Amino acid sequence: MPAPRAVLLLSGGLDSYTAGALMRERGFELHALSVLYGQRHAREIHAARAVAADLGVARHIELEVDLRRFGGSSLTSDMPVPVDRAIVPDEIPSTYVPARNTVMLSLALAWAETLGSSDLVIGVNALDYSGYPDCRPEFVAAFEALARLATKAGVEGRPLTVHAPLQHWSKAQIIREGQRLGLDYGLTHSCYSPPAEGRPCGRCDSCLLRAAGFAEAGLPDPLMNR
Amino acid sequence: MPAPRAVLLLSGGLDSYTAGALMRERGFELHALSVLYGQRHAREIHAARAVAADLGVARHIELEVDLRRFGGSSLTSDMPVPVDRAIVPDEIPSTYVPARNTVMLSLALAWAETLGSSDLVIGVNALDYSGYPDCRPEFVAAFEALARLATKAGVEGRPLTVHAPLQHWSKAQIIREGQRLGLDYGLTHSCYSPPAEGRPCGRCDSCLLRAAGFAEAGLPDPLMNR
Repeated sequence: MPAPRAVLLLSGGLDSYTAGALMRERGFELHALSVLYGQRHAREIHAARAVAADLGVARHIELEVDLRRFGGSSLTSDMPVPVDRAIVPDEIPSTYVPARNTVMLSLALAWAETLGSSDLVIGVNALDYSGYPDCRPEFVAAFEALARLATKAGVEGRPLTVHAPLQHWSKAQIIREGQRLGLDYGLTHSCYSPPAEGRPCGRCDSCLLRAAGFAEAGLPDPLMNR
Repeated sequence: MPAPRAVLLLSGGLDSYTAGALMRERGFELHALSVLYGQRHAREIHAARAVAADLGVARHIELEVDLRRFGGSSLTSDMPVPVDRAIVPDEIPSTYVPARNTVMLSLALAWAETLGSSDLVIGVNALDYSGYPDCRPEFVAAFEALARLATKAGVEGRPLTVHAPLQHWSKAQIIREGQRLGLDYGLTHSCYSPPAEGRPCGRCDSCLLRAAGFAEAGLPDPLMNR
């Protein structure tokens, strides 16, 4: 029997890399989708390509959807990215991109249906995170319910599953799992606002969460030793 | 008090035109979104522009999202569009585009959130239709539930509403309502597969549903008198 196919949303960060590796370990054939939504940290696509190659995905699609047309986020407009912020789970920062995960899961759903895949994978987690509403377990569950109604597969009795294997893990747990899986986090990119020379800024939410995760895991971040 | 804003998914067909006119009558300021998803009937964008102008929308965004990358539909690939088909509600034809309405509503949601709008509008109806799963009332309700969890607005107690004012209407009822509203259906485009000279084919599902609707309403189709 051929391996079941899963569509993985792949950003180039460490979460989606780890989520993909876990699904590969569970026997899925990975099809990776990276959405170029106009994010200011567009260079993460280079990381996504490196990660896709390392995961040995069957195919990697890079799809452009220009969310800058709508604005409303410091990641898709000229608003400054906040730095050195105390991350409070109940506060939604300006780096929140309206409906981003809804848009990306919808696109993954479209591809899954044409692939005959019943499995979507997203690397969200709602423990060490920036408070984005579309990273929470109730969001993931609602998308899964929608997906079962939205598709021919769902109507025909092949319901979709949205896998969010990191959902309840801390960043340190994710990183330790990555070590177990032999992942090279030096391939990844997390910074929201990389300076011109390409080094992580070390001060945006994403850099702060990453640094705290490596510290708590008691491991060095390979990106910082370069 | 300024008029509340609504984001209208506008295809250039008669349903979204009528849905928009109804919402305008209810006092909403319309912001129209047309998604260029690689449909073979790409000329419907010209109709969308004419309809947007006629509706007097505050803004019209045309956004490209190339669903041909995923294929899987006769509207987004080289598969032939079926003609002269007996339309059976329980059968999903090849013109079904996987997850199309999920993708389009997600994009409308993204824009609505940046506009401070709590109202999305979609012209789906599930009576005289092609059996697409993402036109059914349960799909619309599931998207609304998702939207309330997916967004900052939802978290902050400003829940989104998905308006599908034509949901339970026949095509003839829609056309009669359009007549009451003074709409010019000569501006619209319905055909999935227009021949080179630009006349509707008269044989695809969309043409057949349109023709039956005008016949049942006892009105001439202005597109056919040109």
